[in-house]
Amino acid sequence: MAALAALAPLQTQAAEGMWMPQQLPQISKALSAAGLQIEPSRLSKLTEFPMGAVVSLGGCTASFVSPLGLIVTNHHCAYGSIQYNSSAQRDLLQQGFLAASLSDELPAAPGSRVLVTVAVSDVSGQVLDAKTQALAGKARYDAIEAGQKRLTAACEADAGHRCHVASFYGGLQYQLIKQMELRDIRLVHAPALGVGLFGGDADNWMWPRHTGDYSFYRAYVGPDGRPADFHPNNKPFVPKHHLTLASQSLKEGDFLMVAGYPGDTNRHRLPAEVDFTFSWQQPSQIQLMGEQLALIKTATHGRRDAEIAVADRVAGIANYHKNMQGQQASFEGSDILARKTQSFAELKAWVAADGARQVQYGADIARVENLLAQSQEIARAEQLLDYTSPRLLAAARSLYKYAQQQALPDAQRLPGYQARDSLRFAQGMETLQRRYDEPVDKSLSAHFLARYLALPAAHLNQPLLAALGLQAGMTEAAIATRLDALYAASQLNQQAERMAWLQRDVAAFKASQDGFIKAAVALYADDQAREARDKALSGQLDQAYANTMKALIAFKASKGEAVYPDANGTLRVAFGHVKGRKGAVDGADWQAFTTLRGISAKHTGEGEFNAPAQQLAAIKARQFDRYKVDGLDSVPVNFLATLDTTGGNSGSPVLNDRAELVGLLFDGTLDSVIDSWDFDPQRSRSICLDARYMLWQMKVVDKADRLLREMQVL
Amino acid sequence: MAALAALAPLQTQAAEGMWMPQQLPQISKALSAAGLQIEPSRLSKLTEFPMGAVVSLGGCTASFVSPLGLIVTNHHCAYGSIQYNSSAQRDLLQQGFLAASLSDELPAAPGSRVLVTVAVSDVSGQVLDAKTQALAGKARYDAIEAGQKRLTAACEADAGHRCHVASFYGGLQYQLIKQMELRDIRLVHAPALGVGLFGGDADNWMWPRHTGDYSFYRAYVGPDGRPADFHPNNKPFVPKHHLTLASQSLKEGDFLMVAGYPGDTNRHRLPAEVDFTFSWQQPSQIQLMGEQLALIKTATHGRRDAEIAVADRVAGIANYHKNMQGQQASFEGSDILARKTQSFAELKAWVAADGARQVQYGADIARVENLLAQSQEIARAEQLLDYTSPRLLAAARSLYKYAQQQALPDAQRLPGYQARDSLRFAQGMETLQRRYDEPVDKSLSAHFLARYLALPAAHLNQPLLAALGLQAGMTEAAIATRLDALYAASQLNQQAERMAWLQRDVAAFKASQDGFIKAAVALYADDQAREARDKALSGQLDQAYANTMKALIAFKASKGEAVYPDANGTLRVAFGHVKGRKGAVDGADWQAFTTLRGISAKHTGEGEFNAPAQQLAAIKARQFDRYKVDGLDSVPVNFLATLDTTGGNSGSPVLNDRAELVGLLFDGTLDSVIDSWDFDPQRSRSICLDARYMLWQMKVVDKADRLLREMQVL
Repeated sequence: MAALAALAPLQTQAAEGMWMPQQLPQISKALSAAGLQIEPSRLSKLTEFPMGAVVSLGGCTASFVSPLGLIVTNHHCAYGSIQYNSSAQRDLLQQGFLAASLSDELPAAPGSRVLVTVAVSDVSGQVLDAKTQALAGKARYDAIEAGQKRLTAACEADAGHRCHVASFYGGLQYQLIKQMELRDIRLVHAPALGVGLFGGDADNWMWPRHTGDYSFYRAYVGPDGRPADFHPNNKPFVPKHHLTLASQSLKEGDFLMVAGYPGDTNRHRLPAEVDFTFSWQQPSQIQLMGEQLALIKTATHGRRDAEIAVADRVAGIANYHKNMQGQQASFEGSDILARKTQSFAELKAWVAADGARQVQYGADIARVENLLAQSQEIARAEQLLDYTSPRLLAAARSLYKYAQQQALPDAQRLPGYQARDSLRFAQGMETLQRRYDEPVDKSLSAHFLARYLALPAAHLNQPLLAALGLQAGMTEAAIATRLDALYAASQLNQQAERMAWLQRDVAAFKASQDGFIKAAVALYADDQAREARDKALSGQLDQAYANTMKALIAFKASKGEAVYPDANGTLRVAFGHVKGRKGAVDGADWQAFTTLRGISAKHTGEGEFNAPAQQLAAIKARQFDRYKVDGLDSVPVNFLATLDTTGGNSGSPVLNDRAELVGLLFDGTLDSVIDSWDFDPQRSRSICLDARYMLWQMKVVDKADRLLREMQVL
Repeated sequence: MAALAALAPLQTQAAEGMWMPQQLPQISKALSAAGLQIEPSRLSKLTEFPMGAVVSLGGCTASFVSPLGLIVTNHHCAYGSIQYNSSAQRDLLQQGFLAASLSDELPAAPGSRVLVTVAVSDVSGQVLDAKTQALAGKARYDAIEAGQKRLTAACEADAGHRCHVASFYGGLQYQLIKQMELRDIRLVHAPALGVGLFGGDADNWMWPRHTGDYSFYRAYVGPDGRPADFHPNNKPFVPKHHLTLASQSLKEGDFLMVAGYPGDTNRHRLPAEVDFTFSWQQPSQIQLMGEQLALIKTATHGRRDAEIAVADRVAGIANYHKNMQGQQASFEGSDILARKTQSFAELKAWVAADGARQVQYGADIARVENLLAQSQEIARAEQLLDYTSPRLLAAARSLYKYAQQQALPDAQRLPGYQARDSLRFAQGMETLQRRYDEPVDKSLSAHFLARYLALPAAHLNQPLLAALGLQAGMTEAAIATRLDALYAASQLNQQAERMAWLQRDVAAFKASQDGFIKAAVALYADDQAREARDKALSGQLDQAYANTMKALIAFKASKGEAVYPDANGTLRVAFGHVKGRKGAVDGADWQAFTTLRGISAKHTGEGEFNAPAQQLAAIKARQFDRYKVDGLDSVPVNFLATLDTTGGNSGSPVLNDRAELVGLLFDGTLDSVIDSWDFDPQRSRSICLDARYMLWQMKVVDKADRLLREMQVL
């Protein structure tokens, strides 16, 4: 695959692109021209400054900001840990949290991890060796999975590390990612909800924005300095590198870069996938998620404990819901499908124009569309199923599959069920307790089961109906009665009981009278059959898809164009500038910065616009400390940037031209969410927390002097 | 008072000022310099073009736009008439209305009037003659009222005209306004609610804005061409002048003027009034009106008929509620009180510095603050009372007072109860039927009576308690039971019964067993006593206030500054430009124009953002007809203007430099509502409907070809 990289031309504008660090030397001239002051090649060295300070939380990004393992990320990335430590009696979510000393720092939610990428190597030749290349369908799928497990196991022989094999360009290229795994993570500081989530769902994806979306963790290690589970005797981790806060003021037009772990983009998807997503999949998901949110709201009304329990889940659904709505709105006013269709037609014409190319790619390109249609048919038939399952049934199915897998030698087990996964698996079962609310669970299942059972009987999954004692056409009331009986017959809502099942064998499951365990056992054969069906299809699809991507890359290369891979949760770097947006909204332009003034203006004292009284008083008294920007006559709060980012970049450090910390990426504007499919540098804006707002709030309002001294800004 | 006008200097910026037409020749140079193309002196001639085309609807402004009496005003000004003609079966509010021919035009709501100002004369010397100047307290109040009635009666000897004496500069100057009264008014066209009220309460006072706030009336006259009541044989009124639509495109920076009937400003209020309003009166009203809105929503939930019945009232409360909230927000972030206090102190120092001035003004300036304090004490004690009264009780009190007044010779009756008022009075009683909903009325009265009865017993109005059979401290449930009994014992909810009471004498009232009539009779003595108390205070206050204003005007004149009077519902002209606003919102700038794009972007298909399908289709298909503006790549919808306007200006024609119609004024931005107290040309923006949007919607979507031809734009 090295040939691909060599073809990449210099970028003239540092806006589009989530670059693999190893690609950066290719665009060094463009980076320097755009304003980067440090040597560009430094950015490709993962264990050097600044990349060595950038870490993954799994789903979010974070960075070390002190020599004692202090980590800054978004409030919404630490939300689960803040919630985990909250109760109606001690509502840290609402009031915020500031540990007075190291010993007051609180364990993060179970399963919390800090992952430091220490090595990346191309393993395409090992995953896709000649023998694997010759296979098809499920055999190919299994061979690739086996290859990935083998490489992962060898890599993880280095204790304290997690490794995984990531797929690039739709299965065309594979890289082995090695990460040090810090697993004693503690909550150090979170501002009040009225700061960290100011604007809430109403302002989510919106500009002007005034969210103090930051929180602090600290990573701890054992007395030997190596990754360890939580223990009171553990000591703060000493990172090799940490970021320092910018000493110079950030202003519109300034160069920026962001390093992080973007999760998922679809820039190279085929037109059939674009069409399916926007004409059916997303519209129906938007409808279903809207129903979920309404049901949860009703089911938790007036019960603060329940609201806290499901807060994390609600925030996640609401975020995704609004994201999809924004994507739909942008898509419907765009020519994206027409352009994708046009360029795929051009690719096919280019392949057809040459005999050798026709031989190499022709059949797979023809097959890929047929295979996508099969995959989409399954998705249509089973979409509603995902919404119907009681969470305890899902837990029971996971536990039974876990027991089945434990009966195999470790190397033969499925990913997610190996010895290396057991702790995380157990933590998932533990965390369920704090995020589970039975009335919510019943309400959702009854509602969606009623919708599912109203489908034509021939479309229904009969094993599921049999296992749960349901019939086609049942009313929601009848379903609710049946669910009540199932819940009453199960003890899986008790944490000790769930944890005990982790130790039990298949025979014990088969003998159990627990309602949900019995259902899981009854469903196992069907679950396995569907899994095998999906793997067979996946094996076919991946092979055809990878070859289609190979054709696309060759086609682009023939025109002198390089291709950066879609985001896949691996470390990437993007570049851009601080920049407002003219005509962003019909009748209004966006400025690059918001200020403290906007907090007072938006504050209503209710719901999502409820800033803390001390903060409002400090704003009113113009206690700006050293953080005032004269041109703004206030402290900057959030800013807009032309940075190419997506979900997973949340919490990413935003760096200036000297690689100093100037902010945290935490969102994109609503009409930028379509960037996932189609990037437009004129339209796209990332929304960043200005570090000066964070420091002002910590200094003037929250008196977090201990942390400010630790970051050497006090 | 002529001397005041002569002192007025030329204005250098045509932004602040609601000018009396007769003041305009003074500022003619400034108007020409600002861009006015027609001779400025033309604007001072009320019966010439263009002022002759501008009319009052009483609370709103409108203008003639055809030779056949076609009148354009805001949708929200015609809302009551659209609602009056709507029912659940034929929901004109929702669907809009377009009369296919003259004979299909619908009678406007009872009481609808078009008033054409035909003469204005200064009558200060007659109202405040030497004998009146020598009186004090209630005697002074009564003498002024008698003088006004005398002048009004003489003026109205000219049949078909309404006259009134308006007070300027706090009772310092009086003008007799003579208006032709057209009273057969018909609804011609209103767009669908999703156009005319697009954005609803959510967008009220907001920018960017996309409201098609226009509707059409037509004035009819008798066969003899004179004002007449509704009759099928009536014919369209032929106005002497009508406005024509602009032929040239309006763009940012263009000169504008607006002629209309602004209702009420407080630019010359004393600091004690400012303080009372913003520290107590408005905050408590905001609270009470918020409760009203919530109660009405609950009481009408699921009853579309009831929602229609109270729609007009709800819109009015919501509008005022948001206005007051905006005023409070602006006030709290301002130095208005400090500046008012400072300039009043300067006035007092200027008076004290000179013996003659001290003699002329000193005592009254000292008294005015004391009298204001007395007035404020009454307002505090009685504020809640206004919210407690069942509407049928209010009707009964009006009817009984009406009967009492009818026993007097016409000239001795109170204003509002004379022969000239009887038709309007009767129409008010008639209209009540369509806007009344008993559950709403009971719910509001029970709620606010419960709050009132919870006040210390010594503060309660004992006659009211006795008349309604209430006791201090009663629970809301007990009050509701008592109200049920009162409603059950009354037939005033029947229109025929209310109308019959208009013919009955005092003795008939005293003999009545109707629950609300009995209460009204029982309350009469107390009502009279409080009215006399208020008049006595008003007589004192007006005298002292007028002299204080005289001192203020003299003080300003000594500094070479002129004073335009506060708005008082009389015809005024304001000047400005089309202009966006930088930094209008923290993090965003406002552009001058919105476009059709914003309608599609805001459309959700629900609630207040539900544009008609045909409109959305036309936007999507870019069917812009001749109304596209290239620079906007769409049709302009609304625009911002630096025009000094306030409530009452709604529906005012916005004219370009040639006095051609370019739009309708319909709102101000939320941070402009404080303009009522303190004008700031940097901050203040009026929101106008762009005539091109109205014409586009009428032509492309609603196919209102008949009206477009009548306006000679097709």
